[in-house]
Amino acid sequence: MSARAVPAGRAGAAPDIALAERLFAELAHRTGTGRGVTRASYGLGEQIAHDMLRREARALGLTVATDAACNLYATLPGASDAPGVVIGSHLDSVPMGGNYDGAAGVLMGLGVVAGFVRAGIVPPRDVTVMAIRAEESTWFGSSYIGSRGALGLLRADELDGVLRHGDRVALGQAIDAAGGDTAALRRGEAHLDPARIGLFVEPHIEQGPVLLAKGLPLGIVTGIRGSFRHRHASCTGAYAHSGATPRAGRQDAVRAVATLIVEMDALWQARADAGCDLTVTFGQVSTDPDEAAFSKVAGRVGFTVDVRSASPDTLAEVAAELEARVAAIAAAQDVSFDLGPRTGSTPAAMLPGVVAAMERAAHDLGLPARTMPCGAGHDAAVFAGLGVPTGMLFLRNAHGSHNPDEHMDMADFAAGAAVLSRLCLDPPALAAP
Amino acid sequence: MSARAVPAGRAGAAPDIALAERLFAELAHRTGTGRGVTRASYGLGEQIAHDMLRREARALGLTVATDAACNLYATLPGASDAPGVVIGSHLDSVPMGGNYDGAAGVLMGLGVVAGFVRAGIVPPRDVTVMAIRAEESTWFGSSYIGSRGALGLLRADELDGVLRHGDRVALGQAIDAAGGDTAALRRGEAHLDPARIGLFVEPHIEQGPVLLAKGLPLGIVTGIRGSFRHRHASCTGAYAHSGATPRAGRQDAVRAVATLIVEMDALWQARADAGCDLTVTFGQVSTDPDEAAFSKVAGRVGFTVDVRSASPDTLAEVAAELEARVAAIAAAQDVSFDLGPRTGSTPAAMLPGVVAAMERAAHDLGLPARTMPCGAGHDAAVFAGLGVPTGMLFLRNAHGSHNPDEHMDMADFAAGAAVLSRLCLDPPALAAP
Repeated sequence: MSARAVPAGRAGAAPDIALAERLFAELAHRTGTGRGVTRASYGLGEQIAHDMLRREARALGLTVATDAACNLYATLPGASDAPGVVIGSHLDSVPMGGNYDGAAGVLMGLGVVAGFVRAGIVPPRDVTVMAIRAEESTWFGSSYIGSRGALGLLRADELDGVLRHGDRVALGQAIDAAGGDTAALRRGEAHLDPARIGLFVEPHIEQGPVLLAKGLPLGIVTGIRGSFRHRHASCTGAYAHSGATPRAGRQDAVRAVATLIVEMDALWQARADAGCDLTVTFGQVSTDPDEAAFSKVAGRVGFTVDVRSASPDTLAEVAAELEARVAAIAAAQDVSFDLGPRTGSTPAAMLPGVVAAMERAAHDLGLPARTMPCGAGHDAAVFAGLGVPTGMLFLRNAHGSHNPDEHMDMADFAAGAAVLSRLCLDPPALAAP
Repeated sequence: MSARAVPAGRAGAAPDIALAERLFAELAHRTGTGRGVTRASYGLGEQIAHDMLRREARALGLTVATDAACNLYATLPGASDAPGVVIGSHLDSVPMGGNYDGAAGVLMGLGVVAGFVRAGIVPPRDVTVMAIRAEESTWFGSSYIGSRGALGLLRADELDGVLRHGDRVALGQAIDAAGGDTAALRRGEAHLDPARIGLFVEPHIEQGPVLLAKGLPLGIVTGIRGSFRHRHASCTGAYAHSGATPRAGRQDAVRAVATLIVEMDALWQARADAGCDLTVTFGQVSTDPDEAAFSKVAGRVGFTVDVRSASPDTLAEVAAELEARVAAIAAAQDVSFDLGPRTGSTPAAMLPGVVAAMERAAHDLGLPARTMPCGAGHDAAVFAGLGVPTGMLFLRNAHGSHNPDEHMDMADFAAGAAVLSRLCLDPPALAAP
């Protein structure tokens, strides 16, 4: 062990917030578009972010590694070989997204580790900053690609069959193009051993308005919502002249999809009134840009459905309701629906011991925080699902996320980094659930 | 007068159906796309069709002329200089449309005149086949461009301000590029004098299913529906994370537009139940293809509204209802609507004397026909609006129009041509209404 080893719990390891701030600015500049940032999974923007992290990690003298799925690991070796702390989040973004969603977690990890390096502190266990690939499933339509790749859980059919939205590059091809090793992924080889991770923490901006409304800088996540999605749903009717086709003879795909959206919204309202945790979102709805016209009844509409809940039962009930309503509308309006493949994720609880350790750290530092559920999916769900002691730390954020207007104050980022630094220096002794 | 002059009402002037059939095939071949035909207003496909018509008219020895808006006139001089018969329709199509919408009327006129030429018949009055430009307002978003141009009714602000969908070429630029004379159009110069048109007839495929359902080859139109349209409407909410944004905080443009569509559909049902003539169509609805994602609440939706009725009062009532509902939904769902410019056309009645003459001709020929309203707008409305004795002849057609699957039987086309030939040889003596 290094001569610089320090006792657990030592104070004075101020995270390097200025480093994070400089890297946020560089990210905004280099991955910015006319509106927000775009860091496609295994695309240019994500690669720029990974290259930046590698550069900074090397400058700090950290041990740098990548795995077969091109996730990046920057490790500060600890004073013992006890299962280490991994601080991980993603560096990709949705198209025209915000600069903080994902990147805040990675840069917070780097800032914490940089603080240890600058102060000459050796933490009691290895601390690894993990930059995870391809978390935003808007690109490949598959959840948690990077983290599942790190853990040997990517399936061969995904590598071959899942295509990136827009350019339709296959996932496996994109991974290999980024320098990955899909042969190893196909063999199910894992870079990470869950038993060797003593604590996985994903810091992330809150993607809703709760902390802002409550006036709190930090949230401590108790569980991650699961979901089901139809990303390639469509309704087919028949194109017809808008003035000459009587009401009775119409097969109007726009009317049918609008009916479905309104009915599912009413279902959501009813479930919410009954106390169920639920969101129902039709984020993309579109007639054919080439074939539709204002003077035609629409013969086809493509749409997406995204349903999320902390309750597996609610997800199953809403999925059944969706199928039933689609069938009823198809019969009533003489159209057909094809919901396409259903993807999704199961709800994941955070380890109560991790939640308690975070609460304690925040309390000791005098930082107000509250426990709360997480509405969005995150890579932390994969680690939790494998029994890794897992937690998520939320940062107050304005204007939601997945849009250019998301806004995190660096003061709140610094508060989160202080909690995280404390956890690294004094990691809780935890057993998987 | 020519030595070939024949008595009005002479039989034996069989229209040249084979010529029309050959030209339909050439049109399908030369203006076909992967799906249907595309003959953009003042675009390539329309130009090909006009060039074909000019070629055939010259081969038949007809007098060929064009006007400042590039409409084409092919005239067989008659035995007298009484106001002539004009058989007119358009040669453009919607994108990926059918081969018969518009072209059937022009080729029917040509087939009738060719029949006269082949039989050496000189009709009692001039018979002019008019190929009208730019009838499909899906291209320039302006109704009846060609016929209004022929009559000196195009406005300078349209020439400069109206842009073609897709390539955004200004109308005036497109007309000049096609060989027109926008300087003359700006001066309001008319090629046609309404007082010199004794009868305007527009043959056209029926764009709905009525004749097919009734088992009739021909329809005789009593009036043309008017309309109002919003071609560039939009709803703006706020992009937000689909999993992390609670129901209460959402500004969901998809939900708002779906609500509007469902409410306007219910309004249509109620008006239809009360006996009103009405159609309400949202033909194009689309989230932003770049910014929307399945995992985002939609912050913006573009859409079109097309409302048609034979009743000006109904149009005014529905327009007021649309405004009221938009305001109510905006308030209830915390979004904003911008309906954009409103365009449209006023309903136009066909001259009862023309309707009666067509009924008589069909009856004399033993061809079953029925009178019916016309749901779509047509250039005939412009002529009727100026007091020209005007009629429309509908041809049975399957699968509606404005789509590649429209289907007219050549036997029905021949039936229509027989009626038209009879009208040319025995034109009714009519006064404008």
